[in-house]
Amino acid sequence: MKKSLILFVLSLISVFCQTKSVAQTIKVVNASELQTAIAKANPGDEIIMKNGIWKDLQIKFYGTGTKDQPITLRAETAGRVTIEGESNLQIGGTYLVVQDLHFKNGYTPSKSVIQFKINNDSIANFSRVTHCVIDEFTQPNREDTDHWVELWGRNNQLDHCSIIGKSNFGPTVRVFLNGNENIYNYHQIVYNHFGPRPRKGGPHGETLQIGDSNTSMAPSYTNVSNNFFDRCNGEVEIISNKSNFNEFRNNIFFESEGSLVLRHGNYCVIDGNVFIGNEQSDFIGGIRVINTGHWITNNYFYKIKGNEFRSALAVMNGIPKSPLNRYNQVTDVVVAYNTYIDCISPFQFGVGANVDKKDVLPASEIRSASPERMLVANNLLYNHIPDTNPIINYDDVSGITFKNNIFNSENKSSVTNNGLITQALELNKLSEALYAPSQNLEDVYNGFDFDKISTDLFGSERSKQNSIGAITVPVDGNPLLIKKERYGAKWLIKESSNYKSKTIAVSSKKSLINSLKNANSGDVLSLKAGIYKIDGSLAITKNITLTSSDKNKKAELRFTSNQPGFVMHPKGDLHLENVILKGDKKQVAITTLDKNMSKAFNLFIEDTEIANFQSVLHVYKAAFADSITIANSNIKNCSKGILLNTEIDAKGDYNAEFVTITNTSFDAILSDVLNYFRGGYDESTIGGNLVLENNSFTNCGEADESGILIQNHGIVNVVLSNNTFKNNPVKDIAILWGEKGQKPFNNSISNSGEIRIEQNLKQKLMY
Amino acid sequence: MKKSLILFVLSLISVFCQTKSVAQTIKVVNASELQTAIAKANPGDEIIMKNGIWKDLQIKFYGTGTKDQPITLRAETAGRVTIEGESNLQIGGTYLVVQDLHFKNGYTPSKSVIQFKINNDSIANFSRVTHCVIDEFTQPNREDTDHWVELWGRNNQLDHCSIIGKSNFGPTVRVFLNGNENIYNYHQIVYNHFGPRPRKGGPHGETLQIGDSNTSMAPSYTNVSNNFFDRCNGEVEIISNKSNFNEFRNNIFFESEGSLVLRHGNYCVIDGNVFIGNEQSDFIGGIRVINTGHWITNNYFYKIKGNEFRSALAVMNGIPKSPLNRYNQVTDVVVAYNTYIDCISPFQFGVGANVDKKDVLPASEIRSASPERMLVANNLLYNHIPDTNPIINYDDVSGITFKNNIFNSENKSSVTNNGLITQALELNKLSEALYAPSQNLEDVYNGFDFDKISTDLFGSERSKQNSIGAITVPVDGNPLLIKKERYGAKWLIKESSNYKSKTIAVSSKKSLINSLKNANSGDVLSLKAGIYKIDGSLAITKNITLTSSDKNKKAELRFTSNQPGFVMHPKGDLHLENVILKGDKKQVAITTLDKNMSKAFNLFIEDTEIANFQSVLHVYKAAFADSITIANSNIKNCSKGILLNTEIDAKGDYNAEFVTITNTSFDAILSDVLNYFRGGYDESTIGGNLVLENNSFTNCGEADESGILIQNHGIVNVVLSNNTFKNNPVKDIAILWGEKGQKPFNNSISNSGEIRIEQNLKQKLMY
Repeated sequence: MKKSLILFVLSLISVFCQTKSVAQTIKVVNASELQTAIAKANPGDEIIMKNGIWKDLQIKFYGTGTKDQPITLRAETAGRVTIEGESNLQIGGTYLVVQDLHFKNGYTPSKSVIQFKINNDSIANFSRVTHCVIDEFTQPNREDTDHWVELWGRNNQLDHCSIIGKSNFGPTVRVFLNGNENIYNYHQIVYNHFGPRPRKGGPHGETLQIGDSNTSMAPSYTNVSNNFFDRCNGEVEIISNKSNFNEFRNNIFFESEGSLVLRHGNYCVIDGNVFIGNEQSDFIGGIRVINTGHWITNNYFYKIKGNEFRSALAVMNGIPKSPLNRYNQVTDVVVAYNTYIDCISPFQFGVGANVDKKDVLPASEIRSASPERMLVANNLLYNHIPDTNPIINYDDVSGITFKNNIFNSENKSSVTNNGLITQALELNKLSEALYAPSQNLEDVYNGFDFDKISTDLFGSERSKQNSIGAITVPVDGNPLLIKKERYGAKWLIKESSNYKSKTIAVSSKKSLINSLKNANSGDVLSLKAGIYKIDGSLAITKNITLTSSDKNKKAELRFTSNQPGFVMHPKGDLHLENVILKGDKKQVAITTLDKNMSKAFNLFIEDTEIANFQSVLHVYKAAFADSITIANSNIKNCSKGILLNTEIDAKGDYNAEFVTITNTSFDAILSDVLNYFRGGYDESTIGGNLVLENNSFTNCGEADESGILIQNHGIVNVVLSNNTFKNNPVKDIAILWGEKGQKPFNNSISNSGEIRIEQNLKQKLMY
Repeated sequence: MKKSLILFVLSLISVFCQTKSVAQTIKVVNASELQTAIAKANPGDEIIMKNGIWKDLQIKFYGTGTKDQPITLRAETAGRVTIEGESNLQIGGTYLVVQDLHFKNGYTPSKSVIQFKINNDSIANFSRVTHCVIDEFTQPNREDTDHWVELWGRNNQLDHCSIIGKSNFGPTVRVFLNGNENIYNYHQIVYNHFGPRPRKGGPHGETLQIGDSNTSMAPSYTNVSNNFFDRCNGEVEIISNKSNFNEFRNNIFFESEGSLVLRHGNYCVIDGNVFIGNEQSDFIGGIRVINTGHWITNNYFYKIKGNEFRSALAVMNGIPKSPLNRYNQVTDVVVAYNTYIDCISPFQFGVGANVDKKDVLPASEIRSASPERMLVANNLLYNHIPDTNPIINYDDVSGITFKNNIFNSENKSSVTNNGLITQALELNKLSEALYAPSQNLEDVYNGFDFDKISTDLFGSERSKQNSIGAITVPVDGNPLLIKKERYGAKWLIKESSNYKSKTIAVSSKKSLINSLKNANSGDVLSLKAGIYKIDGSLAITKNITLTSSDKNKKAELRFTSNQPGFVMHPKGDLHLENVILKGDKKQVAITTLDKNMSKAFNLFIEDTEIANFQSVLHVYKAAFADSITIANSNIKNCSKGILLNTEIDAKGDYNAEFVTITNTSFDAILSDVLNYFRGGYDESTIGGNLVLENNSFTNCGEADESGILIQNHGIVNVVLSNNTFKNNPVKDIAILWGEKGQKPFNNSISNSGEIRIEQNLKQKLMY
């Protein structure tokens, strides 16, 4: 009796202590204090990391908070705690909050920077990462794969984070669904600023991927809302949805060279998003649809000029009885109440249809199943300059029902029916890029379950004012399409580059080397006429221009060692203008680091002569140029030319995004005048862009084993026009890829090979 | 002002009339009155069909009832309205109820008997079919496909119906998910009596199918609870689940030769079901698992002796990146709190693993992906006679976690770990087939989300009393496993067959023919010794035994015309005992109708001599024998023997389920002594059963073009033992199928071919 009384009192005390424990604030100054504080933390506690740089910090943040009393880990002052070096954060437990951390100047030693899981027995639930920044925290080797945020568990939130500049392999943010602990996750990915993510030159450059084909049958329920996808150019998929019941609402996709892709999984909602392109780019896309039961409503597309995979609405053909990781047929998809302003052929159906490729692909790759039971209704298409081809169909559209869609252009496409109506429309411009009809277009179609489309793009109730298109009028207030301040970590002040570049006069080898070392990014080195003998390599680690002070008397860099002339480093931008580079045939003129090319380089060559090298440009594997531009130059007497051919794994990767060569002469380049290679049958990489215009090629290719002067295997976009080919002893000048619309134009050929077109390229299957 | 007042009053009246309209009872006597009544029906109305037979009635029942005031269509007196001939019922609208209708003596002229849809614009929602009966309402031609109930729309209910005896192609009940109108259906299929469904001899004989592979990504949410599946033997799948989120709770599967198969679709719940087998049958199965995320809990298995596909728990291997219509890998499946009493090797993992068949199958058919992230916990296995092989694994089980499973037998299987515990157990027998532990086995494993397994098989809360296995003690009341009165239409009185068969003496051809015509099913015709010359065919339309009154002086039926001797009709059962059948080589001894063999026949031949026929047995395409049994007989001097080889479409069908021939001599059968064929690579049909024991074959096969004496292509189960083969001029006696475990035993062979075993049979792919 007495014993049990004591037990009773003890348990009362214990309850009292638990519920009344006062939340503590624990300030920590190093990793060991941090882990100790974590181990001791109680609900309501705040662990505060002292301002400063924390280097090589691998945090395991675990604990059990409560809804009202979470355990918080945060910076002393937002923006003044940076985590650098080989660092990461793993979170496991319940109701944990991480706030105001800044990852920069480093990379993760594991497979993720922030992971909502410590191990399979310690997964995060009801936890939140907010107002954190991950900035260029990229692997030294671009080919090393990681994710910057991995979501596991259920009911976690990533909000108001700024996640910028991932250049290595792997989606930036990844939601995992492997295992029952991770389904029905209801994660909230909201109010983040994603990007810019640089072009990657191959697949695995998504900004967000939810699930994968192996878990594509899982119910996910991730909510991706109110995020700003800012120039997310990594690859053809900005978001790769690969699971079910996810929602994408009110996000901004700003000049991002890709699409929101419903790659696997079904029954997703894409509502109220804004897709903004521009006049110049054909790479900025909209929504690409595969699979079943999606609802695409209230979205606003502006100047989306992409085609096929990148069209504003790309509805793909499926593979009958598709393998799990390929393309299911589109069925039961609804596209309603969307607005397309100044988009080019925004509706594209049967995209990827490829029965004509049955000779080069196995049956399990042939997309012959056109959409079924699809409904396209109440959409508004407006073009200031008429687009008479609003619809492109690559296959039968008999499985698609069109109702009450309105264009303001004449419809000369091959799809016409009374659900596609041309009528004059009057639109008002409300703000930059934002157009609404001057009055509601009230003849809407009421499809099955359309009562669930209850509001418009701006949240106005459609039961009160309804119209075809994403916007009903009147529009409340004076809305803008983009309000940048809503997104990302509030405290992050962008270091705005106000630096004004300066010109540094150079007159000797020594001053050249010193100036190059000490210059700021953006500076110009102006070389006095004369010969600069360089017996080593010049490292390009920033944006540097080399030019001649007297354009009529070009300075000459004469390279004398076996070392390469220039070595491009990550983020190196080299501009050569009005100079001469000469070697003695034993060295490479320009190359890259052979490893740790973590970020892209750029190369601009103008009015420059390059002669007597072993090769002109050699790019190592895993190195990548965003742009290589050569104009008005002369390249001669080299064993090899421009070598962009080290991505030989046939996995869709390549060494440069844009290669543009104009008004340049190539003379006596013995082989590989240009060798630009992308291998592997993969539609995730629809890149590689080559422009060859107004150049001359003379006496080139005599030692070329391939027998092909210009090698562009697998490069998707090729322009070959107005060039002159003379006395090149090759079998072929180039082999163009007919399926991709490549054809030569107005080239002059004498005593050289021919330009051939192969309709279908035989490529190595990647799946 | 005045006008609007009038309008106001008018609208008030209208509201008044609508809400106060008195529900009517409308009695109808013919089809035209019925359709008129339907056209006029208001919420709350009852349309009553007059008692009697309604012939060739095709009802379109449409309307808009309300939850409180449905529109009802019913029989005047339950059980006294029968719908016969070419009849069906289609339902379209909201809150419609159909009650007490009895479909018999006919078949549907369309593709379904009861369809919850009139057309795509008129689909049923919130509608109910209750206390109806569909009894042997089967197509005349077994190969004509139909469904007896098609569920479309949402929120419909099929309850307390008795659905019995479908013998033609097509699942009995089918839920359709094609189109957004039909997903999230929450259909209730409850308290029905399904079956018996006779063996079909091939695929497409499911009792219930929910979705198909093309809609297998759809959210279905069909609830299948508290039904009685009574000898549903149609094929290897009793229920074929092909969509997501369906629930199967508290159903009884009684001696049904198949399994509840999770064929496509994911995240289903199988909880609290009872599977009852028996001592004799290896064909009665349990649950077969494919795909992801299923929870299998609280189920009770009794005497399930099936193997592989038909084991109590068959967990299949998947095909990596499987095509949509084949086998996805099993992942994230939970099997917990189930009880297995007197089952043989109830746990079988990696079923269907077939890497050894890679030479005869394409890569897309190779099931090499073993289960992943699967959890097997808290299951109870008890055998009165020890089963030391409770687990069979056909592949790696490293992806399966075992926790706290208890056996009472020693575990000599190759899978052992500390989650599989052998311990002595004491069980109490509560009622027929129902065993519970004498005390709770409380050391349960608490897995992720196991708190959701809140009750046991009988609904007792596990938070109050918990135990390993499906049953916790004490058990309330005195439960029975089966309470038949809970299921099906209450008014259906089974015509219990109390008929006592009589023996009819026959002494002349005329009395034979008359007696055969006038006999009741089950009667015996006892033939006086002598020769009965028959110049036509004898039709067998019922269960008839022909025997000789003096077993030592057998009566002889001598057939003289070109017509077959006996013609089997649907449901014809012919027993030949102690008689002699003789032909003059120009006719078939026994055959079937050449069309409209809507139901199976049976043939039993004992102590009988059959000689001088063109062939012994010829079964037409689409005809099917459940059992063909020949014993102690003598068959000789025929051009051909037993021909069960007309299902040549290679779609998995065959002409007879059980062929058993024992102690019988075959003499001078020139070809096709036995030709028993199943074509097509299809695992849905794991049938065809041939027993050849203690027979002798002499001088047979000399005209056989196949060079094979016994042809058993594609038949899965073959016993060939203790036979004597002498002087048969063939190349092979038989070719057995090694993969199926076929091997000859103790046969004596002289001057005949050999018995060969082919490990893998090359078959035509069906998919």
